Amino acid sequence: MYVILIYDINTEKNQKVLSKVFKICKKYLFHVQKSVFEGELTKSQLFKLKKELENTIRKDVDSIIIFKSRNEKWLSKDFLGKSETSTDNLL
Amino acid sequence: MYVILIYDINTEKNQKVLSKVFKICKKYLFHVQKSVFEGELTKSQLFKLKKELENTIRKDVDSIIIFKSRNEKWLSKDFLGKSETSTDNLL
Repeated sequence: MYVILIYDINTEKNQKVLSKVFKICKKYLFHVQKSVFEGELTKSQLFKLKKELENTIRKDVDSIIIFKSRNEKWLSKDFLGKSETSTDNLL
Repeated sequence: MYVILIYDINTEKNQKVLSKVFKICKKYLFHVQKSVFEGELTKSQLFKLKKELENTIRKDVDSIIIFKSRNEKWLSKDFLGKSETSTDNLL
């Protein structure tokens, strides 16, 4: 299935959580914009990704949305302005 | 078609662009996370939305991604951590 993941990580209290979340996402998905990742995952890969993220984020202040489409062909993508950001752009 | 819009607006130079982009998106879509909107749009609505955004953002520093799916049924959504943010949460 094709996955789009967007995170909103609170950096006021702890900067480390953001970099941990970024590194976890980069193991599974492609980084396309500051807090946006996308890519093809199997069910078990998605399960592992979610487990790692759940063990990292703070449920009361951080937020992650995962959109799933059964097939990448059913999704198209437009960019306005600056397109692919360099993947080492952490924040 | 079903649309997921994610923006990354540079606020170092000008804060007003972010609030303008937020207001434009809110006219057409539902706010689901800090910089994420989603909703059903017709082709002409999407065309208008893109025009308004293109006239607002700075092409060299701001970035907007628009994912489109022909049918909302082909997309499912998971939340980890904090779910729907209050829609007046601008930044």
